[in-house]
Amino acid sequence: MTRRFRIAAIAGDGIGKEVLPEGLKVLAAAAERFGLQLEFTHFPWASCDWYIQHGEMMPPDWKAQLSGMDAIYFGAVGWPALVPDHISLWGSLLKLRREFDQYINLRPVRLFEGVPCPLAGRKPGDIDFFVVRENTEGEYTNLGGVMFPDTEREMVIQESVFTRYGTDRVLQYAFGLANARQRKHVTVATKSNGIAISMPWWDGRADAIHADYPDVTVDKQHIDILTARFVLQPDRFDVVVASNLFGDILSDLGPACTGTIGLAPSGNLNPDRRFPSLFEPVHGSAPDIAGKGIANPIAMIWSGAMMLSFLAAGPDPDPRCGEAHDAIMAAIEEVLRAGPRTGDLGGTATTVEVGDAIAARVRG
Amino acid sequence: MTRRFRIAAIAGDGIGKEVLPEGLKVLAAAAERFGLQLEFTHFPWASCDWYIQHGEMMPPDWKAQLSGMDAIYFGAVGWPALVPDHISLWGSLLKLRREFDQYINLRPVRLFEGVPCPLAGRKPGDIDFFVVRENTEGEYTNLGGVMFPDTEREMVIQESVFTRYGTDRVLQYAFGLANARQRKHVTVATKSNGIAISMPWWDGRADAIHADYPDVTVDKQHIDILTARFVLQPDRFDVVVASNLFGDILSDLGPACTGTIGLAPSGNLNPDRRFPSLFEPVHGSAPDIAGKGIANPIAMIWSGAMMLSFLAAGPDPDPRCGEAHDAIMAAIEEVLRAGPRTGDLGGTATTVEVGDAIAARVRG
Ligand SMILES: CC(C)[C@H](C(=O)O)[C@@H](O)C(=O)O
Ligand SMILES: CC(C)[C@H](C(=O)O)[C@@H](O)C(=O)O
Repeated sequence: MTRRFRIAAIAGDGIGKEVLPEGLKVLAAAAERFGLQLEFTHFPWASCDWYIQHGEMMPPDWKAQLSGMDAIYFGAVGWPALVPDHISLWGSLLKLRREFDQYINLRPVRLFEGVPCPLAGRKPGDIDFFVVRENTEGEYTNLGGVMFPDTEREMVIQESVFTRYGTDRVLQYAFGLANARQRKHVTVATKSNGIAISMPWWDGRADAIHADYPDVTVDKQHIDILTARFVLQPDRFDVVVASNLFGDILSDLGPACTGTIGLAPSGNLNPDRRFPSLFEPVHGSAPDIAGKGIANPIAMIWSGAMMLSFLAAGPDPDPRCGEAHDAIMAAIEEVLRAGPRTGDLGGTATTVEVGDAIAARVRG
Repeated sequence: MTRRFRIAAIAGDGIGKEVLPEGLKVLAAAAERFGLQLEFTHFPWASCDWYIQHGEMMPPDWKAQLSGMDAIYFGAVGWPALVPDHISLWGSLLKLRREFDQYINLRPVRLFEGVPCPLAGRKPGDIDFFVVRENTEGEYTNLGGVMFPDTEREMVIQESVFTRYGTDRVLQYAFGLANARQRKHVTVATKSNGIAISMPWWDGRADAIHADYPDVTVDKQHIDILTARFVLQPDRFDVVVASNLFGDILSDLGPACTGTIGLAPSGNLNPDRRFPSLFEPVHGSAPDIAGKGIANPIAMIWSGAMMLSFLAAGPDPDPRCGEAHDAIMAAIEEVLRAGPRTGDLGGTATTVEVGDAIAARVRG
């Protein structure tokens, strides 16, 4: 029997509103071809427009509205000219990640044929790794405060919080992922030489978890030199595991090294499946190009494919989700190779044209 | 009358011991040619060997020993196989930066002729900017602790500390530097959308200081996308100002984008000149290549040139220091163009050969 998947669609702000429809178009094409039952419910909130009207980013019962969903398909949120980022993001995306315990932020970094690489001499196949980012704690907190505000003596404390619970599970996920891959290598991002309490502790947890994965090799790299190696030796990486902040940095830098962050997808995963997982492009709402119809929809579309692959792997899975994932990825690869292309890839196509081209190939 | 400059020479660990002599060789050549009085005193501490023998990284009276110096010329410190980094570094380099109030870490990023650029299509002249890093506070602290140690409930707090005093002065330095340059542009690294207390506050201080520099243009960029732009649009930057951690990251990534961190120098400046400033390569002690005589000495040599330029600008300056700086930079540029080159630049020359070649050109 065909399983029905209930999916929340949230466009958010800026180019989120332009790329989400293309993602939905491609998912609809895949559903039709592979006989999937994807049922989308649209939510107008988690956007700055909603905030302006309601004084909050999401309605009080947001959790009830989303809890029954199998997944959340999310565009982008934030419009700093209207609402400060730390309000819009803490009131929506960061809240969703945390309250739905989406503790893994999974971000593939891959160089495709047809995408001009900013790194000299790198070919498709050279760059193909995952950033596994802790997604619920660490450096992203609103703990701390200001002492002697508005005086010369003003001073600010910002606290980071790392738990063994939160750290071990992301390390476990990363080691498990590496163990299932061919190279079986984990790079642990750290900064134990400068950040004197949390990072040496983090290194210790990495050693402890590593003990359970004897087939996996590991190296620890300080975040400063690690960013340098993303540029100088991107072929060295397999699975890179990092704290919330370091993972954030590496998962923008990695895609930049493969040509454009307009391609990079992400899954905010609750692997326990107690809560819906959230799939979104790594790029943000991009106010500078919003409203022009020129944003690259591929990150959104690839995020949709990741969503299908996550659904395909669940309990009571539908294998056709996996086939649909593969068809979307093949269509993305073909379009990257042959066009049409948006401006970030040197083309002149619109968001809709690229979405149409991928949907047509998925339809077959 | 010729001013005599007293300079502390500290080799430290690993390749620090190999590159420092080359730096000294070049400075001696410059001193001879331009009639400078540079008086070097060597200190065997701030090294892991010293720690092994004495149980501390520096002797109790280190401050008295160094206080009369005009500058400190520093190799690299750290040998994790012997001493954990957070002990060796907090006991030496980070202590020097802090106790001598070297609140500016100035790090030029420049693409040279003859250096293969890892970014496709970039030419010398395209990349030429400064990273100005806060160097005494911020994310680098040993404040915080572990709760419920060695249990399942274990949890770690790490505190960052930002003062108005410390933040304003680094912003002022960066705006002043930009104001004296042609493009007059400052990029402020931030992460106000995720790090909810310190970073929005940091943005506010940047606005406040900007008000005093009407001719300087500014943009604020989140650290994640900023690292991406270092790769995608490195020609856009002029002066980048950042917190301790973000500056650390950007000043490894920037040099990587220009080909090798084997070239990148830095000045840890106390602009008030109450304490000696410290000049060191950005690269570390590099245990993987230490002892082989193949390290690139240019970062050390360039750091020496920065030291002369800092001394030349002081009160009671000696203009010949400025001339010596220019001669060293010209020699570095010539050797980068024509060789010899160390392995990181695709050559086979030794550390000593490159040092000799630069010293010979400085001698004229
Ligand atoms: C060695 C380490 C503590 C140091 C730092 O992070 O400041 C180094 O990376 C640097 O950039 O000078
Ligand atoms: C928008 C911002 C809060 C977010 C983050 O830093 O997590 C974004 O950069 C991302 O990577 O998803």
